[in-house]
Amino acid sequence: MINFQTDPEHYRHWRLEIDGARADLSMDVQEDETLADGYKLKLNSYDLGVDIELADAINRLRFEHPEVKVVVLTSLKPRIFCAGANIYMLGTSSHAFKVNFCKFTNETRCAIEDASAHSGKRFLAALNGTASGGGYELAIACDEIYLVDDGNSAVSLPEVPLLGVLPGTGGLTRLVDKRKVRRDRADVFSTLAEGLKGKRAKEWGLIDDYFPTSRFQEAIESRVTEILGTTNGYKAGPGIKLNPLQVEHSADRRTYQYVDLKLNRSKRYADLVVHGPAGGLPTTPDEIQEQGDRYWPLQTYRELDDALLYLRLNEPEIGLICLHTEGDIDQVLEVDKTLAANRDHWLIREIILFQARVLQRLDLTARSFFALIEPGSCFGGNLLELALAADRVYMLNDPDETITVATSELNAGALPMGNGLTRLESRFLSTPEKVREILEGPGRFDTEAAEEAGLVTFAPDDLDWEDEIRVAIEERTSLSPDALTGMEASLRFAGPETMDTKIYGRLTAWQNWIFQRPNAVGEKGALTNYGKPTQPQFDFKRT
Amino acid sequence: MINFQTDPEHYRHWRLEIDGARADLSMDVQEDETLADGYKLKLNSYDLGVDIELADAINRLRFEHPEVKVVVLTSLKPRIFCAGANIYMLGTSSHAFKVNFCKFTNETRCAIEDASAHSGKRFLAALNGTASGGGYELAIACDEIYLVDDGNSAVSLPEVPLLGVLPGTGGLTRLVDKRKVRRDRADVFSTLAEGLKGKRAKEWGLIDDYFPTSRFQEAIESRVTEILGTTNGYKAGPGIKLNPLQVEHSADRRTYQYVDLKLNRSKRYADLVVHGPAGGLPTTPDEIQEQGDRYWPLQTYRELDDALLYLRLNEPEIGLICLHTEGDIDQVLEVDKTLAANRDHWLIREIILFQARVLQRLDLTARSFFALIEPGSCFGGNLLELALAADRVYMLNDPDETITVATSELNAGALPMGNGLTRLESRFLSTPEKVREILEGPGRFDTEAAEEAGLVTFAPDDLDWEDEIRVAIEERTSLSPDALTGMEASLRFAGPETMDTKIYGRLTAWQNWIFQRPNAVGEKGALTNYGKPTQPQFDFKRT
Repeated sequence: MINFQTDPEHYRHWRLEIDGARADLSMDVQEDETLADGYKLKLNSYDLGVDIELADAINRLRFEHPEVKVVVLTSLKPRIFCAGANIYMLGTSSHAFKVNFCKFTNETRCAIEDASAHSGKRFLAALNGTASGGGYELAIACDEIYLVDDGNSAVSLPEVPLLGVLPGTGGLTRLVDKRKVRRDRADVFSTLAEGLKGKRAKEWGLIDDYFPTSRFQEAIESRVTEILGTTNGYKAGPGIKLNPLQVEHSADRRTYQYVDLKLNRSKRYADLVVHGPAGGLPTTPDEIQEQGDRYWPLQTYRELDDALLYLRLNEPEIGLICLHTEGDIDQVLEVDKTLAANRDHWLIREIILFQARVLQRLDLTARSFFALIEPGSCFGGNLLELALAADRVYMLNDPDETITVATSELNAGALPMGNGLTRLESRFLSTPEKVREILEGPGRFDTEAAEEAGLVTFAPDDLDWEDEIRVAIEERTSLSPDALTGMEASLRFAGPETMDTKIYGRLTAWQNWIFQRPNAVGEKGALTNYGKPTQPQFDFKRT
Repeated sequence: MINFQTDPEHYRHWRLEIDGARADLSMDVQEDETLADGYKLKLNSYDLGVDIELADAINRLRFEHPEVKVVVLTSLKPRIFCAGANIYMLGTSSHAFKVNFCKFTNETRCAIEDASAHSGKRFLAALNGTASGGGYELAIACDEIYLVDDGNSAVSLPEVPLLGVLPGTGGLTRLVDKRKVRRDRADVFSTLAEGLKGKRAKEWGLIDDYFPTSRFQEAIESRVTEILGTTNGYKAGPGIKLNPLQVEHSADRRTYQYVDLKLNRSKRYADLVVHGPAGGLPTTPDEIQEQGDRYWPLQTYRELDDALLYLRLNEPEIGLICLHTEGDIDQVLEVDKTLAANRDHWLIREIILFQARVLQRLDLTARSFFALIEPGSCFGGNLLELALAADRVYMLNDPDETITVATSELNAGALPMGNGLTRLESRFLSTPEKVREILEGPGRFDTEAAEEAGLVTFAPDDLDWEDEIRVAIEERTSLSPDALTGMEASLRFAGPETMDTKIYGRLTAWQNWIFQRPNAVGEKGALTNYGKPTQPQFDFKRT
C-alpha cells in the first residue's frame, strides 16, 4: 500500500530547514530508498516517494511555518540539482501508475504556485547543478530560477529526444504559458537532449539569471535578502502542528475521525462518508489556532485528501465513489460563517485554500462521483461543493421527512475550480443569473426546491430510491473505465481554461496517449530501451 | 489515394439545393459507396468520403452561393437523420486513420460554425429522425436543432455506453461549452445509449424545439421564413465558381499551379513551395470577382489546403514539412493591400476567411514544420503567416544578398489562430509590445532585423546554411513521431483556449488515448466487439 502520510522527521530525500522568514528545502535523494523494487534513484532522480515528501513539505510550510516568506529549493548533491523522474521506475511501471504518478507530481507543482500566489511565499530554485526533465519542471514551478555557471550545468527537457515521451509534469505548458518562452525556442529547447547553459538559457527566458560557482551562493543569499527586505506586511503565525492522521483500516474499510471509506470491491464502488462537525466549535481565530489541526474543516479535508489519494493509487478497480455526508447541516454552516468572517486571518485563509485544493484534487480524480443526499445528511456550504463536484447528484424526495441542502458564503468564490470558476458558475454557464439567485436566495433548499434550482440531477421518491441508486451504480460500473475518464475530463471542465487546466487537460491527455504508444513503451520503444545497449526503433507513421 | 476534391455533381451522399436565400443540404448516404472495403454505410452513417462531400458543400455555400442565408441540414431517409460515424469502418481502421478522420470531421464542424459566425448563414438541423453519435455532433454544430416528435426519434451520444470511446467529434465539448448543458445532465445524456426524445431533450437544452411529424415540415418552413424575414442586409453575391484544381502528380511530387510539393520519402520530409503571384493583379472587387477562383490568394490557399490534406491522409511517414516561398514579395504585399482595403466586400472577406481556415488547418496538422527563408523567397503578409505557423524559422544570413520578410495589415488580426490570437500575439506572449512594434515598424526586415525582432529562430550564414539545415532535418525526422505530435500540440497553442482549441487539445487528445486502449480496440474491446455476438470485456482498472 502506498502511504501518503509523512513528516519532516521521516523524510528520506529532502531536508527542510527553517530560519526565520527563510526556508531551505534541499533535495538529497537516497538512491536505495525507493518506493518499489527494480531501480535506483541516482542523481537526485525521483519516484512517487520523493514527491510525497515534497508535497508534505509544501503543505507544512503553509501551516507550520506561515512566517516563511522565501523558500530556497536546492540540492545537497554536487553538480546536480535534479535529474527528473526516474526513467527505470517509469519503464517498469504500469500505465495506470505512470499516469497517477504524473498527476500527483503535477498537483504538487501547482501547490507550489498556489502557495506563491496566496500564502506570501516566494520560491527560488537555486540550481547548483543540472536540472533536467522533471528537475527543470520543478524549477519552472518556482517563481525565480538561478543556475550555476560552472561550464557544465544546464537546464534541459530531454524527454522528447531521449525517451520519446513528453515533459508531462507541466513542463511544456509552463514553458510557453508561464514563462512565455517563444514557441520556436521552446521547440528547439524541448528537442535538445543536452539542454542550454547559463547565457543562452537566460536569453531565452528559461532561467532568470546565472552566476559562476564562486559567486553562486552569495548571489542566492543576496536575492533572499532583497526579497525579505521588500515583503510588505504579510502577517502570519505562529504556525500550527499537523499531526499524523489516525486511520483504522480493515480489508474493506478506512475509518478516519470524520471520513469513512467503505469499499465494495466486488461491485467496484466505494461509499465515502464525510461527517459534519459536532457542536461547541471555536468561533475566533485564537480559539481555532488553539484547536490547531483538530479543527473540523482542517482535519476533515486532510482526511478527505488522504482518502482520495489512497483510492487513486491503491484501489484502481473502484470506478465509482458515492459521496455521502452525515451530521448537522447547521453546524457545517456555522463553520463556514466563522471561516468567511475571519478569512483575513492567515490560518483561516490557509484552511480555506486547503479545502479548495482538496476539492480540486477531487475534480481531477479519474473516478466517477455520485453524491447521494439522504436524511441525516449535511450538504451545506463547503460540503455542498462535494455535491457540485460530483458527476451526478441524487436527492431523496421523501414526503415524510424534509431533507435540505444549503449554500454558504464559501460557495461564492472561496473554493474555485482549477478553471477559475466556482462550481456553481461552471454548473450554470448557460444561466449565470441562477448563480446569483441561488446565492442570494433563502440559503436552504428542500428536495423540490433543490431540483427546481438545478442543484440536483434526479430526485427519486422513497419508493424508487433504492432501486434507482442500485441500477445507477450497476450501470456506471459496467461502462468502459477509459471512456468514462475521458468523458469526465471533458464534461467537468466547461468554460475557460487556465494554465492549471491546460496542464491536466491538454498536456496530460497527450502524455497519456504517448505513454500507451509502442514508440514509447513497446519492446522497441524509447522508454523501454533507455539505458540499454539496444536502440529504440520507431514506427515513423505520424498520426 | 484519398482525394479531397469533389463537387455537387459528383456527390454520392448529399444533395445540395439552392432556392434563393435558402439552401437544403440533405444527407442520403449510399451504403455501398464507401471509401474502403469491409463495411456498409447503413442508416446514414458516414465515413471520410461522406464528410469530404460535406466539407465541400460548406465551402461552396460560401463562395458559390453567398446569397444563401439559411441552410437546412436534413436527411432524405425516413426516420433517421444520421447514425454517426460508421462503427465497422472505425473498427477496421488503423489508429492513425481514425485520428485523422476525426480531425477532418472536427474541422468540417468548425467550418459550419465559422460560416455561421462570419458569412451571414444560419444553419438549421432539421432532425427528421434519430440523430445519434456523430449525427448529433453534426446537429450540435448547427445554430438551431429541431427534432421530430414521432414517438421514436431521439438525439443521443451512445459512444461511451455502446463503444467504449468518446463522442470525439466535438460532441462533449459542444454539449457543455456551446449549448452549455448542465454538466450532470451532460453526464447522464452521454451515458444513455438510447438518448433522449423531444420533451426532455428540449428541457435539457439538447435541442431547441420538437414538433409532431404532421407539423414538422411546416415548423421548419416557418422558422426559415422567420429567419429570412429578419436577416439584416448582409449583401453578397453573385457567387463565383470553384473549379477543380489542376494537379500534376508523379511518384514523389504534386505540382499545382502555385503550390509544389516534393516528397523526400527516404528521408521522411517534404518540401512545400508556395509561389507568389505574378504581376498584373486585380485591385478592385469587380476585377477580382471577374477572376474568380483563379485569383492568386484563393487559388493558392485552395491548393495549399489540398496539399495539407493529401499529406495527412496519404503520406503518414512524412514527418517534417519544409515550407518555402518563391516569388516577388512586393506582389504578395500588393495582394494583401487589395484584400485589406476591400475586406468589407463579401468575396474578399470570404477569401481572407478561407486563408485563415487553411492556416488553422496547418496549425492542427500533426507534422513538424520548418520555414526556410532563402533568396528569392516572398514571406510577406499572408505568406509570413506560414513562417509564424512553423515550429521553427531558419533565415539565411547572406552578406551578398539581402533577403527580407515583411508584414502587412493581414498579420494584425485577419488570420487568427484557433485560440483567437494572431500568430504574432501567440509568439510574443511575454512581450506584447513587440507585436505593435513589428506591425507599426518599417514593414520590411532583413535577416538581422528579423532576428533582432524575434521573427526567426536561427539565421545561419551561407557557409553554415546547408549543413545546419541538413542536420536539423535529420535530427527532427529521427525523433519519436508520437512525442513530436504531443509536443507540438502543446507548444503551438500557448495562451487562451477557445471551444475550438478545447475540441482539438482536450477532447481529441483524450479520444486518441482511448482509441489506443485495449478496452476499446483490443480483442475484447467494445469497439472491436460492436455488432458481434461476443460481449466486450473490460479491464476495470481506472487510470
